[in-house]
Amino acid sequence: MLSGKEVATHNTRESCWIIVHGKVYDVTDFLDDHPGGAKIILKYAGKDATQEYDPIHPPNAITDNLAPEKHLGDVQADTVQKVEIIISDQDKARRQLFEQRPPLQEILNLHDFEAIGRQIMPEKAWAYYSSAADDEITNRENHAAYQRIWFRPRIMRNMTTVDFSSSILGQKTSMPIYISATALGKLGHPDGELNLTRAAAKHGIIQMIPTLASCSFDEIVDAAQPGQTQFLQLYVNKDREITKRIVQHAEKRGVKGLFITVDAPQLGRREKDMRMKFDAESDPSEVSKSGSDKVDRSQGAARAISSFIDPGLQWSDLPWFKSITKMPLILKGVQCWEDAQEAYDQGLAGVVLSNHGGRQLDFARSGVEVLTEVVKHLGEQRGLTFPNEKFQLYVDGGVRRATDVLKAVALGATAVGIGRPFIYAFSSYGAEGVDQALTILRDEFEMNMRLLGAKTIKDVVPAMVDASNIGLHLVSVPSDALYDTNYESLQHAKLRSIDAKGKL
Amino acid sequence: MLSGKEVATHNTRESCWIIVHGKVYDVTDFLDDHPGGAKIILKYAGKDATQEYDPIHPPNAITDNLAPEKHLGDVQADTVQKVEIIISDQDKARRQLFEQRPPLQEILNLHDFEAIGRQIMPEKAWAYYSSAADDEITNRENHAAYQRIWFRPRIMRNMTTVDFSSSILGQKTSMPIYISATALGKLGHPDGELNLTRAAAKHGIIQMIPTLASCSFDEIVDAAQPGQTQFLQLYVNKDREITKRIVQHAEKRGVKGLFITVDAPQLGRREKDMRMKFDAESDPSEVSKSGSDKVDRSQGAARAISSFIDPGLQWSDLPWFKSITKMPLILKGVQCWEDAQEAYDQGLAGVVLSNHGGRQLDFARSGVEVLTEVVKHLGEQRGLTFPNEKFQLYVDGGVRRATDVLKAVALGATAVGIGRPFIYAFSSYGAEGVDQALTILRDEFEMNMRLLGAKTIKDVVPAMVDASNIGLHLVSVPSDALYDTNYESLQHAKLRSIDAKGKL
Amino acid sequence: MLSGKEVATHNTRESCWIIVHGKVYDVTDFLDDHPGGAKIILKYAGKDATQEYDPIHPPNAITDNLAPEKHLGDVQADTVQKVEIIISDQDKARRQLFEQRPPLQEILNLHDFEAIGRQIMPEKAWAYYSSAADDEITNRENHAAYQRIWFRPRIMRNMTTVDFSSSILGQKTSMPIYISATALGKLGHPDGELNLTRAAAKHGIIQMIPTLASCSFDEIVDAAQPGQTQFLQLYVNKDREITKRIVQHAEKRGVKGLFITVDAPQLGRREKDMRMKFDAESDPSEVSKSGSDKVDRSQGAARAISSFIDPGLQWSDLPWFKSITKMPLILKGVQCWEDAQEAYDQGLAGVVLSNHGGRQLDFARSGVEVLTEVVKHLGEQRGLTFPNEKFQLYVDGGVRRATDVLKAVALGATAVGIGRPFIYAFSSYGAEGVDQALTILRDEFEMNMRLLGAKTIKDVVPAMVDASNIGLHLVSVPSDALYDTNYESLQHAKLRSIDAKGKL
Amino acid sequence: MLSGKEVATHNTRESCWIIVHGKVYDVTDFLDDHPGGAKIILKYAGKDATQEYDPIHPPNAITDNLAPEKHLGDVQADTVQKVEIIISDQDKARRQLFEQRPPLQEILNLHDFEAIGRQIMPEKAWAYYSSAADDEITNRENHAAYQRIWFRPRIMRNMTTVDFSSSILGQKTSMPIYISATALGKLGHPDGELNLTRAAAKHGIIQMIPTLASCSFDEIVDAAQPGQTQFLQLYVNKDREITKRIVQHAEKRGVKGLFITVDAPQLGRREKDMRMKFDAESDPSEVSKSGSDKVDRSQGAARAISSFIDPGLQWSDLPWFKSITKMPLILKGVQCWEDAQEAYDQGLAGVVLSNHGGRQLDFARSGVEVLTEVVKHLGEQRGLTFPNEKFQLYVDGGVRRATDVLKAVALGATAVGIGRPFIYAFSSYGAEGVDQALTILRDEFEMNMRLLGAKTIKDVVPAMVDASNIGLHLVSVPSDALYDTNYESLQHAKLRSIDAKGKL
Repeated sequence: MLSGKEVATHNTRESCWIIVHGKVYDVTDFLDDHPGGAKIILKYAGKDATQEYDPIHPPNAITDNLAPEKHLGDVQADTVQKVEIIISDQDKARRQLFEQRPPLQEILNLHDFEAIGRQIMPEKAWAYYSSAADDEITNRENHAAYQRIWFRPRIMRNMTTVDFSSSILGQKTSMPIYISATALGKLGHPDGELNLTRAAAKHGIIQMIPTLASCSFDEIVDAAQPGQTQFLQLYVNKDREITKRIVQHAEKRGVKGLFITVDAPQLGRREKDMRMKFDAESDPSEVSKSGSDKVDRSQGAARAISSFIDPGLQWSDLPWFKSITKMPLILKGVQCWEDAQEAYDQGLAGVVLSNHGGRQLDFARSGVEVLTEVVKHLGEQRGLTFPNEKFQLYVDGGVRRATDVLKAVALGATAVGIGRPFIYAFSSYGAEGVDQALTILRDEFEMNMRLLGAKTIKDVVPAMVDASNIGLHLVSVPSDALYDTNYESLQHAKLRSIDAKGKL
Repeated sequence: MLSGKEVATHNTRESCWIIVHGKVYDVTDFLDDHPGGAKIILKYAGKDATQEYDPIHPPNAITDNLAPEKHLGDVQADTVQKVEIIISDQDKARRQLFEQRPPLQEILNLHDFEAIGRQIMPEKAWAYYSSAADDEITNRENHAAYQRIWFRPRIMRNMTTVDFSSSILGQKTSMPIYISATALGKLGHPDGELNLTRAAAKHGIIQMIPTLASCSFDEIVDAAQPGQTQFLQLYVNKDREITKRIVQHAEKRGVKGLFITVDAPQLGRREKDMRMKFDAESDPSEVSKSGSDKVDRSQGAARAISSFIDPGLQWSDLPWFKSITKMPLILKGVQCWEDAQEAYDQGLAGVVLSNHGGRQLDFARSGVEVLTEVVKHLGEQRGLTFPNEKFQLYVDGGVRRATDVLKAVALGATAVGIGRPFIYAFSSYGAEGVDQALTILRDEFEMNMRLLGAKTIKDVVPAMVDASNIGLHLVSVPSDALYDTNYESLQHAKLRSIDAKGKL
Repeated sequence: MLSGKEVATHNTRESCWIIVHGKVYDVTDFLDDHPGGAKIILKYAGKDATQEYDPIHPPNAITDNLAPEKHLGDVQADTVQKVEIIISDQDKARRQLFEQRPPLQEILNLHDFEAIGRQIMPEKAWAYYSSAADDEITNRENHAAYQRIWFRPRIMRNMTTVDFSSSILGQKTSMPIYISATALGKLGHPDGELNLTRAAAKHGIIQMIPTLASCSFDEIVDAAQPGQTQFLQLYVNKDREITKRIVQHAEKRGVKGLFITVDAPQLGRREKDMRMKFDAESDPSEVSKSGSDKVDRSQGAARAISSFIDPGLQWSDLPWFKSITKMPLILKGVQCWEDAQEAYDQGLAGVVLSNHGGRQLDFARSGVEVLTEVVKHLGEQRGLTFPNEKFQLYVDGGVRRATDVLKAVALGATAVGIGRPFIYAFSSYGAEGVDQALTILRDEFEMNMRLLGAKTIKDVVPAMVDASNIGLHLVSVPSDALYDTNYESLQHAKLRSIDAKGKL
Repeated sequence: MLSGKEVATHNTRESCWIIVHGKVYDVTDFLDDHPGGAKIILKYAGKDATQEYDPIHPPNAITDNLAPEKHLGDVQADTVQKVEIIISDQDKARRQLFEQRPPLQEILNLHDFEAIGRQIMPEKAWAYYSSAADDEITNRENHAAYQRIWFRPRIMRNMTTVDFSSSILGQKTSMPIYISATALGKLGHPDGELNLTRAAAKHGIIQMIPTLASCSFDEIVDAAQPGQTQFLQLYVNKDREITKRIVQHAEKRGVKGLFITVDAPQLGRREKDMRMKFDAESDPSEVSKSGSDKVDRSQGAARAISSFIDPGLQWSDLPWFKSITKMPLILKGVQCWEDAQEAYDQGLAGVVLSNHGGRQLDFARSGVEVLTEVVKHLGEQRGLTFPNEKFQLYVDGGVRRATDVLKAVALGATAVGIGRPFIYAFSSYGAEGVDQALTILRDEFEMNMRLLGAKTIKDVVPAMVDASNIGLHLVSVPSDALYDTNYESLQHAKLRSIDAKGKL
C-alpha cells in the first residue's frame, strides 16, 4: 500500500508514476510509446490520472500494455491529492445547452443529430470526431459524391410490402448497413460503444467493434444479446503475438468477421483537432515573441504510433492471418481496383472501399466512386458480378440517408458502413439516440424502396441509378470579383411599406 | 337532435365523436384510417372541428368516407361550446402583411407570386405547398435542369404574328401548358381550386382536377364554363369500387382525360412541413429531458395511407382501367424510358414525366431530363417521333417562364404542367392572381416565340435548343477554406469620402 | 403664336397637345404609336414636355415622326406654366456622389467605370443600360463564356514591338474593336453619343451609330473628324420608305457599313428597368387592396413597337437592301451557324454574333460560343477560314478586357463590339472617360500581345486558345443545406488577443 | 565632400540628385530608365532616399546601374536634413499586431503563414507579393488545378521507412521541391532572401536566387553553407554584356543551374498593387473634379522596363547562352507543349512550366495542367518518358501542401517550385519561419508517402493519380436570383430556448 505522498515524488520524466482507479503504475519507460504522446501523461506525473484516462482508454488498456512489474500496487485513497479537472467555459456552456435538447421525435434525419451534437457534446469530443485530414476535402467529397448519383425509379410494381433485410458475410441484417468502427466512444457519452451494441441488438444490425474502443472488447461483447452479430476492426500491431491474441480471443468470443484496417500505416494529422487543443490549452506565458519554440512534431508521433499500428503490414502477411483464424478476412481501406483485385486473388472475403472517413489521405476518392471502378474492372478482369456472395464489397463515408445506401447497393455494394452519425446520436441522446437513428433509416428504407420500385434488396439494380458523373471532380474557374460585384441582382416584387399610423 | 353536452362526453380514443357543419359523426373506428393521423382528430374529440376541417377537406369527404350508421345526426347549435382557434403570432403578422400586397401590375413574372405568397399566406399553407422530399435536391433540380438548356434562335423570319395555341389529348389550349393537380387549395385561399377553374376558363387553359382537392369534384366541374376542358388526376384507391365510381362519375361529368398518379405508392416525407408543425405546436411541457419520447412514426402513416392510395397498383391493372372508362389514360410520374415504353406498348395515350414536384423520391431526375431520354429511346426502339399525337409526352416541375415551356416543347413535349406558381398566385390574389399569371405567360410566349423565330408551336423544333449538358449532375470539389479565406478579393475604384463639412 | 393657356386645355386622350422646345404639337393620333407608350405623353398633355423629352429623343424625333399638319406652331414662352421636374431623393444623392468621383488615373480597368457609374449616374439611366431580359442569365453568360476560354501563350519570340492595328470592312482601326450601338446616350450624359464620336476620333476607333441615338444622326456625323470612320446600326421600319431615306442619307454622309439588327422582332422586356419605374412612380393611392388593377401590358407595347421595328423582316427583304445602298451589309444578332451560312450564301459582308447584350432572348448563347460553332460549320460546309476578308465575323457582349477580345480574335473574329463599358465611361467622366477607357484597352493590348507572343493581330491564331469547354453550360446539383451547415469550416492560426493593458 | 544644402538645390526633373547611404548620386538622366518610374525618385530629389531605397534594391543596384561619373561623392552627414518617413496608420496597426503572432508551433500548414503574414507584414509588402495580373483568375487557378487531381493510393506495402529525397539537375535535395525566385525580399523582412538561404541549408533544399533580389547576389551566395546548392533566375538584359557578366559571375561562384525567365517580355500589371498605392498616397488636393488628370501610364513603364528585361529575347539567342556558360540551361515560364518541345530540341536541360505565379498573362493555364499536355505530346512526338534525367520538367504556382507536390511528381515533374509561402513565412517569423515551413512539408511528405504507398519518389507513379478532369475550366451558368431567393432553405432541429429563469 503506497501513500499518495510517495507517489507525488515520482513526477518527472526520469521517474513517472501515475494513479489510475486507485492503483499506482510506473510509466517512465512507457512515456515515449504512448500513442497520445508523453506530454499528456507527464501532466499527471505523481498524480491521480483517472478522470483524464477514463474517457479515452478501455479499462484494461494500462494493464494490457504495461509489464506486470510496473504495476506498483494500491494507493491509500485518502492520501491522494484531489486532481481538479478544469472545465472550460466552452464546455460549461455546452453542458447547459445539453438540457435544451429537443425531444427525440423532433429529430427527423441523421443530419439533426450532428446539428444538436456539435452544440452540446464536449468540445474535445466534437473536435476529435468531426475533424479530418489536411483541408478536409475528402471528408466532404465522401458526401458530395452521392449527390452526383441520381435515381431511375420504376413504377407500377406492387409495392404493398417491401423487404430490405439482407446479409453480410452470411450474417443476417435488417437493413443493408452496419455500424462502422470509430474510436474513443466515451468522449461523447459515458457508456461509449455500448450505446451502439444496445441499439444494434434492438434493430438487428451488425456492430463492428473498434480496436481503439474506450470500452474494453469484452465489455462490448458481453453487452450483446444472444445471437447478435459483431465484427472486429483490427489495427495490426508490430508485435504479432499481441495481434494473434486479440484475433483469436475475438474468434473465441463469437466475432463473425475480421476487418483489417489497411489505410493507416501512419495515423493522419487532423488540423481541426490540433487547432482546438491550442485554443484550449493555450497558456499566455508560452507565447514566444521570438518564434523560436517550434517543436519537431513528427519524430515523436511517428515513433509512438509505430508500436501500435504496424506501417510494415504487407500482402505477404495475409497467409499468417489465415493461419491464425477462420473468421472471414476483409481489408478495410481499399482505394483502387488494383488492390481490390489483389485481395480477391488472395482469397479474402471482401474489401471495404473506404478512405477512413477522410481522416487519412486528403484527395483520396470517395468509397462510392471507387466502387464503380472496382465493379467495372473486376468484371472485366475476373468475370465477377456484384453484389457477390464470395467476394463482398462494402463502402463507407459520407452516408446520411437511406437513399445514399441504396445508391451504393444499386452499384454493387453488399452493405454500407455508417460511423459518425451514430456517434453524434449517442453523444446527444445515448442508446435511445442510436435507436432513433436506426428507426429513421428504417423508415427511409421503406419509403424509398417503394418509391424506387424495388421490393427487395435484390431488386435494387444498376439500371436504377445514373452514376455517369461520379468521376467528375470539378472546380470552377475562380470568380471574376470585379464583374460579379458590379452586377446588381434582380429583385422580386416587394410588399408596400406601411407607416406607424397604418398608412401605406 | 343531439346536445353539445352529450357529444362532449365522447372525447376519447375509445369513443370519439366530432361535430362538422352542425352534424355529429362517430369517428372512433375511423381514427386509424385518417390520412392525417388520429392525433389531429382526437384534438377535437367531443368538439366542433369545422374550422379545422374546412380548409383541408372537400365538403363531402366525411360523408363519402364514413359509413351511414356513423352519421349520428344534427346537434343543437346553441349547446355546442365554441372552439377557439388560436392564431399564431406568425399568422397574425402574415394577415397584416396581406394588406401590403403590391398592386397586381407590379407582379412581373411567376417568381413574384411566390415572393409575395411566402410572406402573406398562412404559415401552414406555405409549409405544405413549398416543402419537398428529404433534402429537397430534386425539387430545386427541377428548375436547375432548365438552366442547362440553351436556345439556338433563328432570325429573319416574318414574325408579324405568332400563334402558340396547341392541343392536348385533342383538346384545344391557348398555350402549350396546363394547370397541374395540387392538393388542399383552401389552405391558401377560401375559394381553393375554384380560383384555377375561373382563370383557366378566361384563358382557354385546361385544368387538371386533383383527387385531394379541398373543393369537391362536382363544385369544380360546376364552376367550369360551357366547353371548358378539365382533366382528372387520380390516386387509385385500394377499394377499386371507389375508384371506379370516381372515374365513371368524372367521365359522365365531361372530364376529357384521366391522369393516374404512379409515383406515390407511399406519400413522401417532407421535413420542412414536419418541422413547421413542431415549431407551431411545440408545447414546453412536452419537452422530454430524457429523450425517451420518440414515437414510431412510420407505422401509423404507412397504414393510414394504404387505405387511400394503393401501393399495390401495377401494370396488370391497366386493362381494368380501360374497361371502366373511355377517357384517354395517362400515367403521371413516369421517370425512365423503360416505363414510358411500357406505357406505349400497353396502348396508353401518354405519360407525364414528373417526380411529383420533388415531393416523393429525392434524387429523382427532372422531367425535362427524362424527356430527352424517352425521346431518344422510343425513337430508337419504337420509331416514334415527338411531339406525337398518338402517344403524348408531358413534363412538369420547376417551370417559371415561357422559355422553360418552349425548351420542353422543342425537345418533344406536347405540353407542360405548372402547379405551385398558380397556387402562390391565388393564395396572394385569388382568381385574379391566376389570371395575371396566365397573362404574363401569354406575353412571354408571344415575345419568346418571336425571338426564337417560331411562328407556331410546330416551328419549335429540336434544333432550336442545345440540351447536350442536360445529364450533367455536377457537384464541385469541396472548397479549400484555408486558401479561399486567405485570398483577398480585388476591389473596384472607390468614391472619395467626403466629410460632414463637404470637404473631401 | 399660341398661348400656354390654350395649349393647357388640350390635356386629354381625345385632344392631346404638348410643347417641346417652344413649339406646340398635336400628338393625339400619335399616342398609340409612341414606342414608350401613351401614358408618359399624357402626363404632359397640355404642358411643356421638353425636359422629359430631351434625354431620350434626338432633337428631330418629333418632327420626323409627326405629319407637318400636326406642327401647330410656336407658343408664347411667358404664358407657359413651368413644369416642375421632381428629382427623387435617390437622384439627389447620386448627384452629390458625382462630386466624389475618383480622379481618372485611379480607374484601372473597364470594370471601374461601371463601379463608379452605377453609383453616380441617374437612376433611370443605370436601370435602362444595365437591365437585360428575363432572369438576365444570358447577360451574365456573355461575360462568363470568356472565362471558359484559356490561353496557350508562346515564348521566345521577339516582342520588342507589337502592332494590334487591324481593319474592319476595309476600314482601318487601331485595335480589333469597335464601339457598338447603344440607345439613349443622353440619359447618362448631356452630350450623349457625341462623347463616343470624340474619343473614337482620338484613338482611331470606329463608332457604330445607333438608330435610337438621343443625338440626331447628323449631329453625330458632324462631330466626326475628317476621315473618321462610322457605321450605322439600323432598326428596319415597317414603312420601308423611312428606312430607305435613313440608309441613303447615311451613305451620302459617308457611313461605311450598315449593321441591320435582326434579333429584335420585338423589343425585350427588361424587368429590372420595369421594376425601377414602379419604385420611382409608385403612388400610395394607386395601391389596390383588391388586386384588381392589373393592366394588359402586352397589347399596347406590341402594337407601338411594330410601327418602328418591323417584326416581318425576312431573308427575302435582302435584295431590296442591296438595291438601295452600296454600303457593305452586315446582320447584327445572328445566333447559330445556320443563319450565318444563309447570310454568307446571300452575299452579305458579314454577321455580328450577338444576343443584344442579353436584352432580348434569355438563354441565348454568348456570341463567342456561337463563334466557335460558325467557324467550324462554315469551314466544313463552305470551306471558309476565319478571320475572312470576304465574310467577316464579329461578336459582342460581355467584353471587359483586351484578353477577351484576343480570345475572340484567336477563334476567328475580325473584331469585337463593346457597348456598355463606354456608356458607363461617359456617364461618369464624359468623353475623357471614353478616352481613358480606350487608353486602358490599348495598354492591355500591348501588354497581352507581348505575353501571348503575337507581334500582330494575324499572329493571334486558334492554337493560342483552349476553347474546348465553351459549350459546357453547367448548373451544379442544388446544395445539401443540412450537410453543409453542419460542416464546421477549417480555421487559420490566429493572432493572440491582447488586452487593454497590452498583456496577451 | 558635398553639403546637404547643395544637394537640396538639385530637386527637379532637370537636375535630380539623391543621397543613398551617405553618398550623392546624379540620377537626372536615369529617371526615365528607373523600373519603378521617375515619380518615386523625384519624391526624394535633393534628399536622403536611403530608407525608401533599402528594402527594394540590393545594395549594389545604384552603383551597378549608374555610370561612375554620376557618383558625386560623400555628403556631410550632419548637413543632411532628416527625411521623415510617414508610417501609415495601417502600418502602425500592423506593427502592433506583429507582437501578437502565435507561437510557431501553432502554425500547422503553409496556409497559416499567409493568414498571419497578411495581417502583420507592411501593407506595401503584402500588396506586392500577393497581387497578380488582371482579374487574378490564373493566380487562383494555379491552386484550384490541384483540386481537380485526386489520388489512387496503394495499400499493404511495407511503409516502415519512406525516403522522399531526390535530385534536381544532378544536385541532391531532401524533398522534390525548390525555393523559387521571388523579388524584393526585404519588403517583408530586413534579412530578405538570406532567410531562405539559411533555412534551405538546414533542410538540404535548393534555393533559386532571383535577379531582382533585394540582397545582392554575392551576399546570398556568401550566406550559403559549404556544399549548399543554389540556382540563378535570370532576367535577360538588353545589354548582353551585363547579362554575360551576371551569368559568368554566378557560374564562378558555384551556381549550378541557370533558369532564364521567358514569360516576361513586359512585366505584368497588378491592379491590387496599383490600387494600394492610390489608397496610400491619395492626397485630397489631387482629386480632380473634372476628371481630366489621367496620365498616359503605358509609355513610361514600357520604356523603363525595356532597358532591364529584353522583350526581344528569342530562340536564336540560345546558342549564345550556351557559349558563355556550362551551367545547365532551363527556360522558366513555358506554357504549352510546343515550346517545351522546342526547348528539348535545342538541347536545354529542362523547362519550368509556370505562369509566373499568375502575375503575367491572366487566363494562362496552371503549370500542372500544362505538365499533363507536355508529358503526353513529348511522349508521342519525341518518345520521352517523365520524370526524365536528360530533360527535366518543373512546375510552380499554387502549391500549399506536400500532396500538391506529389501530384505533380506522379504526373512527371522532377520537382516543384514554391515561392510565396516562404515569403509569408519569413515575413512573419524570419528564417525560423522558413525552417518551420520546410519542417511542415517534410512531415507532410512522410505522412503522405506512407498513405500513398510509395517508399521513394520513384514509386510515385502516374497510376497513383486521376488527373482526367485537369482540363475542365468550368464556369457555372449564372444564378437565377429570383428562384434562388424564393427558395427557403431547410433547417436543422433546434435547441429549445430557455428563458432567464431557466424555464424552457
